[in-house]
Amino acid sequence: MYNRIFNFSAGPSMLPVPVLEKAQAEMMNYEGSGMRVMEMSHRSPVYDAIIKGAEAAMRRVMNIPDNYRVLFLQGGASLQFAMIPMNLMKTGKADYIVTGQFSGKAYEEAQKYGQANLAATTKAENFTRIPRQEELKLDPEADYVHICFNNTIFGTKWDYIPDTGNVPLVADLSSCIASEPIDVTKFGVIYAGAQKNIAPAGLTIVIIRDDLIRTDLPAYVPTMCNYSIMAKNESMYNTPPCYPIYMCKLVFEWIESLGGLEVMAEMNRKKADLLYQCLEESKIFKNPNSPESRSMMNVTFRAEDDAVNAKFAKESAAAGFANLKGHRSVGGMRASIYNAMPYEGVEALVKFIKEFEQGL
Amino acid sequence: MYNRIFNFSAGPSMLPVPVLEKAQAEMMNYEGSGMRVMEMSHRSPVYDAIIKGAEAAMRRVMNIPDNYRVLFLQGGASLQFAMIPMNLMKTGKADYIVTGQFSGKAYEEAQKYGQANLAATTKAENFTRIPRQEELKLDPEADYVHICFNNTIFGTKWDYIPDTGNVPLVADLSSCIASEPIDVTKFGVIYAGAQKNIAPAGLTIVIIRDDLIRTDLPAYVPTMCNYSIMAKNESMYNTPPCYPIYMCKLVFEWIESLGGLEVMAEMNRKKADLLYQCLEESKIFKNPNSPESRSMMNVTFRAEDDAVNAKFAKESAAAGFANLKGHRSVGGMRASIYNAMPYEGVEALVKFIKEFEQGL
Repeated sequence: MYNRIFNFSAGPSMLPVPVLEKAQAEMMNYEGSGMRVMEMSHRSPVYDAIIKGAEAAMRRVMNIPDNYRVLFLQGGASLQFAMIPMNLMKTGKADYIVTGQFSGKAYEEAQKYGQANLAATTKAENFTRIPRQEELKLDPEADYVHICFNNTIFGTKWDYIPDTGNVPLVADLSSCIASEPIDVTKFGVIYAGAQKNIAPAGLTIVIIRDDLIRTDLPAYVPTMCNYSIMAKNESMYNTPPCYPIYMCKLVFEWIESLGGLEVMAEMNRKKADLLYQCLEESKIFKNPNSPESRSMMNVTFRAEDDAVNAKFAKESAAAGFANLKGHRSVGGMRASIYNAMPYEGVEALVKFIKEFEQGL
Repeated sequence: MYNRIFNFSAGPSMLPVPVLEKAQAEMMNYEGSGMRVMEMSHRSPVYDAIIKGAEAAMRRVMNIPDNYRVLFLQGGASLQFAMIPMNLMKTGKADYIVTGQFSGKAYEEAQKYGQANLAATTKAENFTRIPRQEELKLDPEADYVHICFNNTIFGTKWDYIPDTGNVPLVADLSSCIASEPIDVTKFGVIYAGAQKNIAPAGLTIVIIRDDLIRTDLPAYVPTMCNYSIMAKNESMYNTPPCYPIYMCKLVFEWIESLGGLEVMAEMNRKKADLLYQCLEESKIFKNPNSPESRSMMNVTFRAEDDAVNAKFAKESAAAGFANLKGHRSVGGMRASIYNAMPYEGVEALVKFIKEFEQGL
């Protein structure tokens, strides 16, 4: 319709066409205001309805309980890697489970602020699986346990929510938020960069249980990195990233219109199954990960022969499949199939893989 | 044409119509890429040309020398209030000149990181003027001197660049960047939230002289708050706010197409003169500021009788002049007339003020 290509980027990534069409229709004059959303004072009643509407839609879709605050912040997951320990380290120790690059970065950053303990890692197995509950060496006195729920680069996902007892579980959901139902009450904090499943880049979502919001932070914590100040000011301490918040509202309303996260999960499962099935049957491409740990959002595959990988990356791009080349730290290919990737995109990719294989 | 109203918001604020039209035309399919700018991988060649193009246009228009780095960051000026001292306090002391609310916040935030000295303030005069050079009690041993070049709330602007000797001058230009030519070489750091003159909210510009970029920062500085890491990664340590950066490119190209900052300044001067002249002639509305300190971007005015102010705020809004009500800390009215406010908008406002006055 718009000559859209199938964009398998790990993020920023495709946005749903109905959302883009609504945004375009409302663009030059939002609801008769005579303004574009991008031009509105964030303190105006018309914008206030947008940010409150975004939060309300997210709460309905994700079933977020009243004792959790939703914050619209900036800086991406990378700034959260510092904000989590700055705000949550009370006794000064926390457990980190490292299952890929971003959880590794979070673990490193936390060491600036206290004692970050490596409670488990699958690094020795090249992050091809998520550790099992019995492998986690959890400290019952830790301030929190940190995990990355879906590993964008390695294409793995926690297939269970770890039991951390009374210790709050903190999870980076950047690349799987809103892809399926999740029990928010099992987490102390959920955070996510918006640029994969929620909105254009520049917005960070933090969902935090209100008893974890502290005011007695170390003096060095910047005002903008203090959850209590952000919560007290309802994400309006200063100008928030207004347009991505507007898009976030449209995206959650779109999910709702489809039937919510159960339906979303079913659609995502169908896409992922189709692609994993194709890789199972392939004689040249393999997904390296343990079946139970496979991500529904990021599907990695590679041929043993790197010349074949290079040929596939080149030919798939030429055929209109964008951004299939895997992250340089893993090599091979990665198809990110977030909420907005249509089933037809995965079907077309599977067809292309089969034809490529036959043509070798 | 689009039923656009005249929006006098202090920010986010109007964007230039030619920029909005170009963005709309390119929206669903950017340069034949089959993607929207909002959906592009920030590491793709097509997006790389956008971010590099934004920097290049800004460098041409603002005449930024090669020994300055341009960074595209997040968090607004409020995060810079912390990043400046975290990155620049070497001996642990800095001079702050407080001329309004935001310079006051910067001064407060800096006290977390060292000895922030109040080198001058016009608080006792309700910030109605900028202090003169001879009033500044500058410490020649300070790590830097911080000023806010244009005071959005009080409607004042530095009419000169203070002489700080060998001490680097750091300036918040959020509400006047790109409104007129400025000699970048007089500053060590210039920073600005983009949501007034440059782009939609969610982007922060930092222009920093490269010898001020240090790597030996205190351990508590978050990676995302470290200028050297941001500079080394060319603002791509993590996903940048891609869409506002694209809009920044279009805005600077628009300024260039008009003839650059000299022409922009002439247009802005004409608008501001028209409005200040009207206030000089008004029997009920007055601008409280010293003539030499008056802002070209934010024009404040108020009637002695607060009932008249309330009546004006209400009737002007009803007549399609949005966001004229002044900041709650000052009262009265404020017309923010940034680059994208057309001359016709100020003309219409002046006509409305005169008619309002006659109707009293």
